[in-house]
Amino acid sequence: MKDTPTNKILLAHGGGGRLTANLISNNILPKFSNEILAQLADAASLELDSPAVCFTTDSYVVKPLFFNGGDIGKLAVCGTINDLAVAGAKPVALSLSMIIEEGFELGVLDKILASAAEAADGAEVSIVAGDTKVVETGAADGIFINTAGLGTKLPDVNLSFGRIAPGDKIIINGTIGDHGMTIMSQREGIKFESQLASDCASLAPLTCRILEAAPGVKFMRDPTRGGLAATVNEIANSTGHSIELYEKDIPIKPAVQAAADMLGFDLLDIANEGKVVIVTAPDTAEKVLDVCKGHPLGAGAGIIGEVAQSEDGPIVELITKVGGRRIVQMPYGRELPRIC
Amino acid sequence: MKDTPTNKILLAHGGGGRLTANLISNNILPKFSNEILAQLADAASLELDSPAVCFTTDSYVVKPLFFNGGDIGKLAVCGTINDLAVAGAKPVALSLSMIIEEGFELGVLDKILASAAEAADGAEVSIVAGDTKVVETGAADGIFINTAGLGTKLPDVNLSFGRIAPGDKIIINGTIGDHGMTIMSQREGIKFESQLASDCASLAPLTCRILEAAPGVKFMRDPTRGGLAATVNEIANSTGHSIELYEKDIPIKPAVQAAADMLGFDLLDIANEGKVVIVTAPDTAEKVLDVCKGHPLGAGAGIIGEVAQSEDGPIVELITKVGGRRIVQMPYGRELPRIC
Repeated sequence: MKDTPTNKILLAHGGGGRLTANLISNNILPKFSNEILAQLADAASLELDSPAVCFTTDSYVVKPLFFNGGDIGKLAVCGTINDLAVAGAKPVALSLSMIIEEGFELGVLDKILASAAEAADGAEVSIVAGDTKVVETGAADGIFINTAGLGTKLPDVNLSFGRIAPGDKIIINGTIGDHGMTIMSQREGIKFESQLASDCASLAPLTCRILEAAPGVKFMRDPTRGGLAATVNEIANSTGHSIELYEKDIPIKPAVQAAADMLGFDLLDIANEGKVVIVTAPDTAEKVLDVCKGHPLGAGAGIIGEVAQSEDGPIVELITKVGGRRIVQMPYGRELPRIC
Repeated sequence: MKDTPTNKILLAHGGGGRLTANLISNNILPKFSNEILAQLADAASLELDSPAVCFTTDSYVVKPLFFNGGDIGKLAVCGTINDLAVAGAKPVALSLSMIIEEGFELGVLDKILASAAEAADGAEVSIVAGDTKVVETGAADGIFINTAGLGTKLPDVNLSFGRIAPGDKIIINGTIGDHGMTIMSQREGIKFESQLASDCASLAPLTCRILEAAPGVKFMRDPTRGGLAATVNEIANSTGHSIELYEKDIPIKPAVQAAADMLGFDLLDIANEGKVVIVTAPDTAEKVLDVCKGHPLGAGAGIIGEVAQSEDGPIVELITKVGGRRIVQMPYGRELPRIC
């Protein structure tokens, strides 16, 4: 029996039978060619350089699937690589699992997979394990992708909330809000959307270089959902120290600010996908800044704040451009559904 | 600002802000208490016993979410543990990522998470990383769960298609079709559904014991989607050898057979979630069988077939109870959507 060619995903593509095998051999394996994946074992077998590992996962439900600067495939690869990178690891391998709605275009799936493969290749990370499930039309919205990531810890690196102390500097590697405002502008169809592009990128080349040059860095986190506001509030709450941010020093693109103003968002709350917040002692801050500025992913880096003594419990304050102070709260979370 | 209590999942629970933090601290962390997860780092930090690891992932979209013998939480934990187990690894850590539909009952989520935690505890595996995304009502069907798994390879174990040779015995640890027919019977509402129960279980205790007692075992695979038919066809196609299955020796529960007959399914194609197919040399087959029979997960084990010389390319043949022969094809995959 010959299988009828199809340009759409069918339920049988997720059934574990012949159509699943076809999808794997025709659409998936050619894009992610590596010896481990090609074995199609129940689990990928890896020899790591070290038994000290980092392990993480994220699911991606971004809408729309394609946006200026990326798509769900690139995002799913870069996002999970970044969680390893900011934990002080060298990313080694990813898994990639898809939940696809019946009727989804195979051509669109191919584009997403090609983009995921390109992002993984660019970061020198192998996609070694995967899974495909198909659900009926209406039971999912197009495609959702999960990636999990495995990395080996960089030697002599010790990143933790516990090392953060008053006086430490807070650095970011570039402009905030680019990813979230790109997605929201495309969704709302506002006119200048073409001027906006997601910052979606793999941060590992930058973080590895920073940690090599300044192993004394104390903490890193990528300000994704919840934006810079969520990240600095997490730092404040976990350390018990307060944080001051300097509004004038936070890098923002004018078109991003215009979009935020038009749509009524505070850019501090908006997701980034190629940014890292770095906390480091004052005497290494310039070194970190130099490393950032010497790398394409950190050209717009700046010191944007400082860890401060907490008076009555930890708070985050923004020192405004006119010298006022306002509290930066943990966002509620309703602002931007399906941003990543 | 006090958050209004809610008994339903809101979009903001997936927004990375305060409601996400509440969900993590109130509903997730108390169930999966371990030091690694409690750090809430971007990636979990682990010291493994060995740098030789296995890594795998699966997404779970089973419908209904609760079934006789399990639920999506237990299934997501056991299924990924089993992929590590049959690859010859000792499962160590899992990630668990959820995509939840807005409006999903928090009480139901709690049940699912408690069940996942119980399954992980029972298998002595820690859930060390996680993620929660929420999509609008209608953009997903209740809840989908992805788990990825990390295990360390058992020493001196070498499982691969390449070692399989004609004459090798094929062993299964018990009855086939229990999981798939339980799900289908519940979906169809047929009367004897109460007599059926999924075999959903973590196989690692059994596979580790088998590999310790009989390190010469050549290959193992869990016959999930596509059932026994898919697994033996994969073995035939990957080795180039043919396979003979003995119908009279394949363990089947009468109620499962009755359900399959009523609904028109071939049990060879039906998913299992607590079964392992083991390929081993003839001189170790009895040893493997003894180990199986001495373990609760293998009490119903039997030798169900043999690897044979291939004449004109590899085929799988069933020797029927009356002595006939029929070809067992790779299932097409349409039989059972959302079985796991």
